[in-house]
Amino acid sequence: MSQSHDLLLYTAKVCPYAHRTELALEESGAKYDTFQVDLANKPEWYAEKVNKASKVPTLVVDDKKPDQFNLPESMVIVEFVSDLFDPVSTGNTIHSKDPKVRADSRYIVERFAQLVVGSYMSAALKQDVVAFNELVQGLRTFNELILERSSQGPFIKGDKFTFADIGIAPIFGRILTVSKTNLFPSSADAAPIHELLEKDASLARVKTWWEAVSARPSWQKTYDEKLIVDMFTKRIQGAQQQAK
Amino acid sequence: MSQSHDLLLYTAKVCPYAHRTELALEESGAKYDTFQVDLANKPEWYAEKVNKASKVPTLVVDDKKPDQFNLPESMVIVEFVSDLFDPVSTGNTIHSKDPKVRADSRYIVERFAQLVVGSYMSAALKQDVVAFNELVQGLRTFNELILERSSQGPFIKGDKFTFADIGIAPIFGRILTVSKTNLFPSSADAAPIHELLEKDASLARVKTWWEAVSARPSWQKTYDEKLIVDMFTKRIQGAQQQAK
Repeated sequence: MSQSHDLLLYTAKVCPYAHRTELALEESGAKYDTFQVDLANKPEWYAEKVNKASKVPTLVVDDKKPDQFNLPESMVIVEFVSDLFDPVSTGNTIHSKDPKVRADSRYIVERFAQLVVGSYMSAALKQDVVAFNELVQGLRTFNELILERSSQGPFIKGDKFTFADIGIAPIFGRILTVSKTNLFPSSADAAPIHELLEKDASLARVKTWWEAVSARPSWQKTYDEKLIVDMFTKRIQGAQQQAK
Repeated sequence: MSQSHDLLLYTAKVCPYAHRTELALEESGAKYDTFQVDLANKPEWYAEKVNKASKVPTLVVDDKKPDQFNLPESMVIVEFVSDLFDPVSTGNTIHSKDPKVRADSRYIVERFAQLVVGSYMSAALKQDVVAFNELVQGLRTFNELILERSSQGPFIKGDKFTFADIGIAPIFGRILTVSKTNLFPSSADAAPIHELLEKDASLARVKTWWEAVSARPSWQKTYDEKLIVDMFTKRIQGAQQQAK
């Protein structure tokens, strides 16, 4: 399809929110340029020229044209990409045309964040064992939620990779990477998350989902696990030393 | 217009998030029933039957029918209401048809929350003077943001009351009510917010906006200021006593 706008994405490989927007653009078949922002050392012009809140991601539409439009906030960008690329012409389907499916997809992204993000951050950065056990419980509740929506999947809303998968996969992927890298605190109550995912019946639907997500070409193109391991190892090992 | 779904909204007058959904339903001309949830004493069946997260608002679509659909999360409900009621047939316009306008409206609701909600809560409930000054500064930044979008307004995106107004007005209205009731801590650096709104040039665009919002029939029907003053006075005076 022809694309009516030039798109420039300010992004950062480490950031799960920025990652959502890369997945949305890939799944839409969009042509876009990227600028990698070093979050530990942001360019001085970034806040002034691109995003006053100085955060990634920001999608710049029609850069250098009079009607340039700078759009921050990850799920706002995903909605916008969904609006720009008509699924009929691209074959992609970030959003269903059914208002109930769209609404429930937006809800489950919010609910996953409530269940998982706070405990993930505390478990990783504060090495908080209580938060780690809450994280495991949050993932089990997530398993129930997606089982209710589509028992077989493999994706959250059925056989298509859509908005809900885009909103959730970048956070889940990082949780799994932190687990495999042994950067969570160890808990007497729960095995490491990557081991639970293989054997725990209460995460079986998540396992099916994750296998399908991580095999997706858009995922493989956008997730740089080695870089994330390097960055998280430095940051979390610092936290582990402080916790001792 | 004929309405194809039965709608039942679980809501609470005190809650700014629930208030958003009442505004959206009113602006759409929807027919809907409400159930007021006492947040201090929730019915036992609420979490089990309506919303596992036990929060308001929740919109129940086609209650008591086989395809009953329970939708939590305020802005998710506003999006859903916008999808259900076609502006062409109702004359209402929660969302513009322009993807850029829709996207920027979603962004500004997020940005207002980042600028204002945390400092508002700390100023009111912790009687934190630093947070109060941050709140005033956040409102001045909000003034700049909406001035950039529409210098005359009166609404955030121009002459129509839309998604961005629905997302922001319920929070701003409560801030103003708390100020008029003298429930914020006093600050040497800033006058009370309701006085600033009348005379401070850096809030002039917010003043224009607020006069148009608060004159809106949907606002007048859904905002019960007396009830909110009563509830906030008890809660915040308790915090003020503790802060002494």
